[in-house]
Amino acid sequence: MDLLKQKIQSEGKVLSNQVLKVDSFLNHQIDPVLMVEIGKEFARRFQSERITKVLTIESSGIAPGLMAALELQVPVVFARKRKSLTLVNDLLTATVHSFTKNETNEISVSSKFIASDDRVLVIDDFLANGQAALGLAEIVNQAGAEVAGFGIVIEKSFQEGGQSLREKGYKVESLARISSLENGEVAFLEELEVALS
Amino acid sequence: MDLLKQKIQSEGKVLSNQVLKVDSFLNHQIDPVLMVEIGKEFARRFQSERITKVLTIESSGIAPGLMAALELQVPVVFARKRKSLTLVNDLLTATVHSFTKNETNEISVSSKFIASDDRVLVIDDFLANGQAALGLAEIVNQAGAEVAGFGIVIEKSFQEGGQSLREKGYKVESLARISSLENGEVAFLEELEVALS
Repeated sequence: MDLLKQKIQSEGKVLSNQVLKVDSFLNHQIDPVLMVEIGKEFARRFQSERITKVLTIESSGIAPGLMAALELQVPVVFARKRKSLTLVNDLLTATVHSFTKNETNEISVSSKFIASDDRVLVIDDFLANGQAALGLAEIVNQAGAEVAGFGIVIEKSFQEGGQSLREKGYKVESLARISSLENGEVAFLEELEVALS
Repeated sequence: MDLLKQKIQSEGKVLSNQVLKVDSFLNHQIDPVLMVEIGKEFARRFQSERITKVLTIESSGIAPGLMAALELQVPVVFARKRKSLTLVNDLLTATVHSFTKNETNEISVSSKFIASDDRVLVIDDFLANGQAALGLAEIVNQAGAEVAGFGIVIEKSFQEGGQSLREKGYKVESLARISSLENGEVAFLEELEVALS
Protein backbone atom coordinates (compact mmCIF):
# COMPACT_ATOMS: atom_id res chain seq x y z
CA MET A 1 0.00 0.00 0.00
CA ASP A 2 1.96 2.94 -1.38
CA LEU A 3 0.33 5.70 0.67
CA LEU A 4 1.24 3.88 3.89
CA LYS A 5 4.81 3.17 2.76
CA GLN A 6 5.30 6.83 1.86
CA LYS A 7 4.02 7.84 5.28
CA ILE A 8 6.41 5.40 6.98
CA GLN A 9 9.34 6.72 4.95
CA SER A 10 8.53 10.37 5.57
CA GLU A 11 7.38 10.25 9.22
CA GLY A 12 8.57 6.96 10.73
CA LYS A 13 11.50 7.09 13.14
CA VAL A 14 13.89 4.16 13.39
CA LEU A 15 14.81 3.91 17.07
CA SER A 16 16.85 0.71 16.76
CA ASN A 17 17.24 -2.30 14.48
CA GLN A 18 14.03 -3.62 16.03
CA VAL A 19 11.86 -0.58 16.77
CA LEU A 20 10.06 1.71 14.33
CA LYS A 21 8.16 4.62 15.83
CA VAL A 22 5.09 5.71 13.89
CA ASP A 23 3.40 7.78 16.55
CA SER A 24 2.67 10.72 14.25
CA PHE A 25 0.03 8.85 12.20
CA LEU A 26 -0.75 5.40 13.62
CA ASN A 27 -0.41 4.78 17.33
CA HIS A 28 -0.49 8.05 19.23
CA GLN A 29 -1.51 10.74 16.80
CA ILE A 30 -3.71 9.18 14.11
CA ASP A 31 -4.26 10.34 10.53
CA PRO A 32 -7.99 9.70 9.95
CA VAL A 33 -7.78 9.87 6.15
CA LEU A 34 -4.99 7.28 6.10
CA MET A 35 -7.12 5.08 8.38
CA VAL A 36 -10.02 5.24 5.90
CA GLU A 37 -7.68 4.07 3.13
CA ILE A 38 -6.30 1.31 5.36
CA GLY A 39 -9.84 0.16 6.13
CA LYS A 40 -10.70 0.05 2.43
CA GLU A 41 -7.57 -1.91 1.61
CA PHE A 42 -8.27 -4.51 4.32
CA ALA A 43 -11.85 -4.81 3.10
CA ARG A 44 -10.62 -5.32 -0.47
CA ARG A 45 -8.17 -8.04 0.54
CA PHE A 46 -10.72 -9.93 2.64
CA GLN A 47 -13.85 -9.24 0.61
CA SER A 48 -14.31 -12.88 -0.39
CA GLU A 49 -13.81 -14.23 3.14
CA ARG A 50 -17.37 -13.70 4.41
CA ILE A 51 -16.13 -11.82 7.47
CA THR A 52 -18.78 -11.41 10.18
CA LYS A 53 -16.67 -9.68 12.82
CA VAL A 54 -13.42 -7.77 13.25
CA LEU A 55 -11.35 -8.43 16.37
CA THR A 56 -8.51 -6.18 17.43
CA ILE A 57 -6.69 -5.17 20.60
CA GLU A 58 -6.49 -1.91 22.50
CA SER A 59 -5.30 0.68 21.92
CA SER A 60 -3.47 1.00 18.62
CA GLY A 61 -5.54 -1.62 16.82
CA ILE A 62 -8.80 0.23 17.34
CA ALA A 63 -8.45 2.83 14.57
CA PRO A 64 -7.53 0.44 11.73
CA GLY A 65 -9.93 -2.19 13.11
CA LEU A 66 -12.82 0.26 13.20
CA MET A 67 -12.22 1.42 9.63
CA ALA A 68 -11.92 -2.16 8.34
CA ALA A 69 -15.17 -3.04 10.11
CA LEU A 70 -16.90 -0.01 8.65
CA GLU A 71 -15.95 -1.03 5.12
CA LEU A 72 -16.85 -4.68 5.72
CA GLN A 73 -20.14 -3.62 7.34
CA VAL A 74 -19.59 -5.71 10.48
CA PRO A 75 -19.01 -4.84 14.16
CA VAL A 76 -15.53 -4.58 15.64
CA VAL A 77 -14.56 -5.85 19.10
CA PHE A 78 -11.38 -4.82 20.85
CA ALA A 79 -9.69 -7.07 23.37
CA ARG A 80 -8.83 -5.42 26.66
CA LYS A 81 -5.43 -5.85 28.20
CA ARG A 82 -6.64 -6.30 31.76
CA LYS A 83 -9.90 -6.79 33.51
CA SER A 84 -12.03 -3.77 34.31
CA LEU A 85 -14.59 -3.73 37.11
CA THR A 86 -17.51 -3.65 34.71
CA LEU A 87 -16.27 -6.53 32.56
CA VAL A 88 -15.64 -9.59 34.67
CA ASN A 89 -17.95 -12.47 33.76
CA ASP A 90 -17.83 -14.87 30.85
CA LEU A 91 -14.49 -13.78 29.49
CA LEU A 92 -12.42 -15.38 26.79
CA THR A 93 -8.80 -14.79 27.78
CA ALA A 94 -5.25 -15.34 26.59
CA THR A 95 -1.83 -14.31 27.85
CA VAL A 96 0.29 -12.07 25.63
CA HIS A 97 3.86 -10.94 26.14
CA SER A 98 4.96 -7.69 24.52
CA PHE A 99 8.70 -7.60 23.85
CA THR A 100 8.55 -3.90 22.93
CA LYS A 101 6.99 -2.95 26.25
CA ASN A 102 8.58 -5.81 28.19
CA GLU A 103 5.35 -6.72 29.92
CA THR A 104 2.90 -9.59 30.01
CA ASN A 105 -0.82 -8.89 29.84
CA GLU A 106 -3.90 -10.96 30.06
CA ILE A 107 -6.09 -9.99 27.12
CA SER A 108 -9.80 -10.61 27.30
CA VAL A 109 -12.98 -10.44 25.25
CA SER A 110 -16.50 -10.86 26.53
CA SER A 111 -17.74 -14.22 25.26
CA LYS A 112 -21.05 -12.75 24.16
CA PHE A 113 -19.38 -10.84 21.32
CA ILE A 114 -17.87 -13.79 19.47
CA ALA A 115 -20.25 -16.52 18.39
CA SER A 116 -19.32 -20.00 17.21
CA ASP A 117 -20.49 -19.21 13.68
CA ASP A 118 -18.43 -16.04 13.38
CA ARG A 119 -15.72 -15.67 10.76
CA VAL A 120 -13.32 -13.30 12.40
CA LEU A 121 -10.80 -10.93 10.79
CA VAL A 122 -8.06 -10.13 13.29
CA ILE A 123 -6.59 -6.63 12.82
CA ASP A 124 -3.54 -5.14 14.51
CA ASP A 125 -1.20 -2.23 13.94
CA PHE A 126 2.05 -4.22 14.12
CA LEU A 127 3.11 -7.81 13.59
CA ALA A 128 6.51 -8.59 15.06
CA ASN A 129 6.86 -11.72 17.18
CA GLY A 130 3.22 -12.58 16.65
CA GLN A 131 2.35 -12.83 20.33
CA ALA A 132 -0.68 -10.54 20.18
CA ALA A 133 -1.92 -12.16 16.97
CA LEU A 134 -1.66 -15.63 18.45
CA GLY A 135 -3.41 -14.50 21.62
CA LEU A 136 -6.29 -13.07 19.60
CA ALA A 137 -6.50 -16.28 17.54
CA GLU A 138 -6.64 -18.27 20.78
CA ILE A 139 -9.60 -16.18 21.91
CA VAL A 140 -11.40 -16.78 18.60
CA ASN A 141 -10.75 -20.50 18.93
CA GLN A 142 -12.04 -20.55 22.51
CA ALA A 143 -15.32 -19.15 21.17
CA GLY A 144 -15.47 -21.98 18.64
CA ALA A 145 -15.32 -19.41 15.86
CA GLU A 146 -13.02 -19.30 12.85
CA VAL A 147 -10.06 -17.00 12.19
CA ALA A 148 -10.62 -15.89 8.59
CA GLY A 149 -7.28 -14.13 8.51
CA PHE A 150 -5.01 -11.45 9.88
CA GLY A 151 -4.89 -7.89 8.61
CA ILE A 152 -1.73 -6.11 9.72
CA VAL A 153 -0.83 -2.49 9.09
CA ILE A 154 2.95 -2.89 9.47
CA GLU A 155 4.72 -6.26 9.50
CA LYS A 156 8.32 -6.45 10.61
CA SER A 157 9.06 -9.41 8.41
CA PHE A 158 12.56 -9.81 9.85
CA GLN A 159 10.89 -11.04 13.03
CA GLU A 160 9.21 -14.40 13.18
CA GLY A 161 5.52 -13.58 13.67
CA GLY A 162 4.46 -13.41 10.03
CA GLN A 163 6.23 -16.60 9.02
CA SER A 164 4.84 -18.40 12.06
CA LEU A 165 1.25 -17.43 11.27
CA ARG A 166 1.60 -18.32 7.57
CA GLU A 167 3.11 -21.70 8.45
CA LYS A 168 0.04 -22.40 10.54
CA GLY A 169 -2.00 -21.88 7.37
CA TYR A 170 -3.46 -18.49 8.19
CA LYS A 171 -4.09 -15.86 5.54
CA VAL A 172 -1.96 -12.87 6.57
CA GLU A 173 -2.30 -9.57 4.72
CA SER A 174 0.17 -6.89 5.75
CA LEU A 175 -0.13 -3.47 4.16
CA ALA A 176 3.56 -2.69 4.61
CA ARG A 177 6.23 -5.35 5.10
CA ILE A 178 9.53 -4.16 6.47
CA SER A 179 12.54 -6.31 5.74
CA SER A 180 15.07 -4.33 7.75
CA LEU A 181 15.56 -1.35 10.03
CA GLU A 182 19.35 -1.57 9.93
CA ASN A 183 21.53 1.56 9.63
CA GLY A 184 18.57 3.67 10.72
CA GLU A 185 16.75 3.05 7.44
CA VAL A 186 13.43 1.45 6.63
CA ALA A 187 13.70 -1.17 3.90
CA PHE A 188 10.52 -2.76 2.53
CA LEU A 189 10.24 -6.28 1.17
CA GLU A 190 10.55 -6.04 -2.60
CA GLU A 191 7.56 -7.20 -4.62
CA LEU A 192 9.51 -10.21 -5.85
CA GLU A 193 10.35 -11.20 -2.32
CA VAL A 194 6.71 -10.75 -1.32
CA ALA A 195 5.59 -13.01 -4.15
CA LEU A 196 7.99 -15.72 -3.02
CA SER A 197 7.47 -15.40 0.73
CA MET B 1 -29.03 12.41 19.11
CA ASP B 2 -31.92 10.02 18.64
CA LEU B 3 -30.04 7.13 17.07
CA LEU B 4 -27.72 7.03 20.07
CA LYS B 5 -30.54 7.29 22.60
CA GLN B 6 -32.38 4.43 20.90
CA LYS B 7 -29.24 2.33 21.04
CA ILE B 8 -28.79 3.09 24.74
CA GLN B 9 -32.42 2.16 25.47
CA SER B 10 -32.32 -1.06 23.48
CA GLU B 11 -28.82 -2.33 24.31
CA GLY B 12 -27.59 -0.48 27.40
CA LYS B 13 -27.51 -2.38 30.68
CA VAL B 14 -28.05 -0.54 33.95
CA LEU B 15 -25.73 -2.20 36.45
CA SER B 16 -26.42 0.19 39.32
CA ASN B 17 -27.68 3.71 39.94
CA GLN B 18 -24.26 4.90 38.80
CA VAL B 19 -23.15 2.49 36.10
CA LEU B 20 -24.48 2.06 32.57
CA LYS B 21 -22.89 -0.68 30.50
CA VAL B 22 -22.79 0.01 26.75
CA ASP B 23 -20.25 -2.57 25.75
CA SER B 24 -22.25 -3.87 22.78
CA PHE B 25 -21.79 -0.73 20.69
CA LEU B 26 -19.43 1.78 22.31
CA ASN B 27 -16.65 0.57 24.55
CA HIS B 28 -15.93 -3.10 23.87
CA GLN B 29 -17.82 -4.06 20.75
CA ILE B 30 -18.19 -0.98 18.54
CA ASP B 31 -20.87 -0.22 15.96
CA PRO B 32 -18.93 1.48 13.14
CA VAL B 33 -22.02 3.00 11.48
CA LEU B 34 -23.10 4.59 14.77
CA MET B 35 -19.56 5.95 15.18
CA VAL B 36 -19.76 7.63 11.77
CA GLU B 37 -22.99 9.34 12.81
CA ILE B 38 -21.46 10.36 16.14
CA GLY B 39 -18.48 11.84 14.31
CA LYS B 40 -20.77 13.81 12.00
CA GLU B 41 -22.79 15.13 14.91
CA PHE B 42 -19.68 16.30 16.80
CA ALA B 43 -18.41 17.97 13.64
CA ARG B 44 -21.75 19.72 13.17
CA ARG B 45 -21.80 21.01 16.75
CA PHE B 46 -18.22 22.30 16.61
CA GLN B 47 -18.07 23.37 12.96
CA SER B 48 -17.69 27.06 13.84
CA GLU B 49 -14.97 26.50 16.43
CA ARG B 50 -11.99 26.32 14.04
CA ILE B 51 -10.84 23.02 15.54
CA THR B 52 -7.28 22.08 14.56
CA LYS B 53 -6.92 18.88 16.60
CA VAL B 54 -9.00 16.28 18.41
CA LEU B 55 -7.68 14.94 21.72
CA THR B 56 -9.12 11.83 23.34
CA ILE B 57 -8.01 9.11 25.74
CA GLU B 58 -7.46 5.41 25.29
CA SER B 59 -9.24 3.16 24.76
CA SER B 60 -12.93 3.95 24.50
CA GLY B 61 -12.46 7.50 23.28
CA ILE B 62 -10.54 6.46 20.19
CA ALA B 63 -13.48 5.39 18.02
CA PRO B 64 -15.64 8.53 18.51
CA GLY B 65 -12.52 10.73 18.50
CA LEU B 66 -11.32 9.26 15.21
CA MET B 67 -14.68 9.75 13.52
CA ALA B 68 -14.99 13.33 14.77
CA ALA B 69 -11.47 14.05 13.50
CA LEU B 70 -12.27 12.52 10.13
CA GLU B 71 -15.31 14.78 9.71
CA LEU B 72 -13.44 17.86 10.94
CA GLN B 73 -10.47 16.98 8.68
CA VAL B 74 -7.91 17.24 11.49
CA PRO B 75 -5.65 14.69 13.22
CA VAL B 76 -6.66 12.94 16.44
CA VAL B 77 -4.29 12.25 19.34
CA PHE B 78 -5.11 9.82 22.10
CA ALA B 79 -3.65 10.20 25.57
CA ARG B 80 -2.07 7.08 26.98
CA LYS B 81 -2.82 5.92 30.49
CA ARG B 82 0.74 5.01 31.41
CA LYS B 83 4.16 5.42 29.92
CA SER B 84 5.35 3.00 27.32
CA LEU B 85 9.00 2.29 26.59
CA THR B 86 8.89 4.00 23.20
CA LEU B 87 7.21 7.16 24.49
CA VAL B 88 9.15 8.67 27.34
CA ASN B 89 10.52 12.12 26.46
CA ASP B 90 8.79 15.46 26.28
CA LEU B 91 5.49 14.34 27.75
CA LEU B 92 2.56 16.44 28.82
CA THR B 93 1.02 14.62 31.77
CA ALA B 94 -1.90 14.77 34.20
CA THR B 95 -3.21 12.52 36.95
CA VAL B 96 -6.70 11.08 36.53
CA HIS B 97 -8.72 9.04 38.98
CA SER B 98 -11.37 6.70 37.60
CA PHE B 99 -14.15 6.04 40.12
CA THR B 100 -15.64 3.32 37.89
CA LYS B 101 -12.39 1.40 37.76
CA ASN B 102 -11.19 2.60 41.17
CA GLU B 103 -7.72 3.35 39.91
CA THR B 104 -5.51 6.37 39.39
CA ASN B 105 -3.58 6.73 36.16
CA GLU B 106 -1.07 9.13 34.83
CA ILE B 107 -2.24 10.15 31.38
CA SER B 108 0.25 11.51 28.90
CA VAL B 109 0.55 13.01 25.45
CA SER B 110 3.73 13.65 23.52
CA SER B 111 4.30 17.40 23.53
CA LYS B 112 5.09 17.42 19.82
CA PHE B 113 1.46 16.67 18.94
CA ILE B 114 -0.16 19.69 20.58
CA ALA B 115 1.11 23.09 19.51
CA SER B 116 0.48 26.40 21.25
CA ASP B 117 -1.71 27.59 18.38
CA ASP B 118 -3.94 24.51 18.39
CA ARG B 119 -7.65 24.75 19.10
CA VAL B 120 -8.41 21.37 20.61
CA LEU B 121 -11.69 19.50 20.72
CA VAL B 122 -11.61 17.01 23.61
CA ILE B 123 -13.68 13.87 22.94
CA ASP B 124 -14.57 11.09 25.36
CA ASP B 125 -17.10 8.29 25.56
CA PHE B 126 -18.45 9.14 29.04
CA LEU B 127 -18.62 12.22 31.23
CA ALA B 128 -19.35 11.43 34.86
CA ASN B 129 -17.18 13.06 37.52
CA GLY B 130 -15.21 14.91 34.87
CA GLN B 131 -11.82 13.66 36.01
CA ALA B 132 -10.67 12.49 32.60
CA ALA B 133 -11.99 15.63 30.89
CA LEU B 134 -10.18 17.88 33.36
CA GLY B 135 -6.98 15.89 32.95
CA LEU B 136 -7.15 16.26 29.18
CA ALA B 137 -7.83 20.01 29.53
CA GLU B 138 -4.81 20.28 31.81
CA ILE B 139 -2.66 18.67 29.12
CA VAL B 140 -3.96 21.12 26.51
CA ASN B 141 -3.21 24.02 28.84
CA GLN B 142 0.30 22.73 29.49
CA ALA B 143 0.90 22.92 25.75
CA GLY B 144 -0.26 26.54 25.77
CA ALA B 145 -3.10 25.55 23.44
CA GLU B 146 -6.80 26.26 23.78
CA VAL B 147 -9.63 23.89 24.68
CA ALA B 148 -12.30 24.71 22.11
CA GLY B 149 -14.80 22.42 23.82
CA PHE B 150 -15.74 18.95 24.98
CA GLY B 151 -17.62 16.45 22.87
CA ILE B 152 -19.09 13.67 25.00
CA VAL B 153 -20.96 10.63 23.75
CA ILE B 154 -22.85 9.91 27.00
CA GLU B 155 -23.07 12.36 29.88
CA LYS B 156 -24.33 11.16 33.24
CA SER B 157 -25.76 14.54 34.16
CA PHE B 158 -26.66 13.39 37.67
CA GLN B 159 -22.93 13.38 38.38
CA GLU B 160 -21.02 16.61 38.69
CA GLY B 161 -18.63 16.55 35.74
CA GLY B 162 -20.83 18.30 33.18
CA GLN B 163 -21.88 21.09 35.52
CA SER B 164 -18.32 21.59 36.68
CA LEU B 165 -17.01 21.96 33.11
CA ARG B 166 -19.82 24.33 32.09
CA GLU B 167 -19.26 26.47 35.19
CA LYS B 168 -15.65 26.87 34.12
CA GLY B 169 -16.98 28.36 30.87
CA TYR B 170 -16.27 25.42 28.58
CA LYS B 171 -18.56 24.50 25.70
CA VAL B 172 -19.75 20.95 26.43
CA GLU B 173 -21.75 19.05 23.85
CA SER B 174 -23.08 15.68 24.99
CA LEU B 175 -24.94 13.53 22.46
CA ALA B 176 -26.99 11.78 25.15
CA ARG B 177 -27.56 13.22 28.63
CA ILE B 178 -28.77 10.78 31.24
CA SER B 179 -30.63 12.25 34.19
CA SER B 180 -31.07 9.02 36.15
CA LEU B 181 -30.31 5.31 36.19
CA GLU B 182 -32.60 4.62 39.15
CA ASN B 183 -34.87 1.58 39.25
CA GLY B 184 -32.79 -0.03 36.54
CA GLU B 185 -34.07 2.41 33.94
CA VAL B 186 -32.32 4.95 31.74
CA ALA B 187 -33.95 8.39 31.90
CA PHE B 188 -32.72 11.13 29.56
CA LEU B 189 -32.77 14.84 30.32
CA GLU B 190 -35.89 16.27 28.70
CA GLU B 191 -35.32 18.86 26.00
CA LEU B 192 -36.73 21.57 28.28
CA GLU B 193 -34.30 20.60 31.00
CA VAL B 194 -31.45 20.62 28.48
CA ALA B 195 -32.42 24.13 27.36
CA LEU B 196 -32.34 25.36 30.96
CA SER B 197 -29.24 23.53 32.13
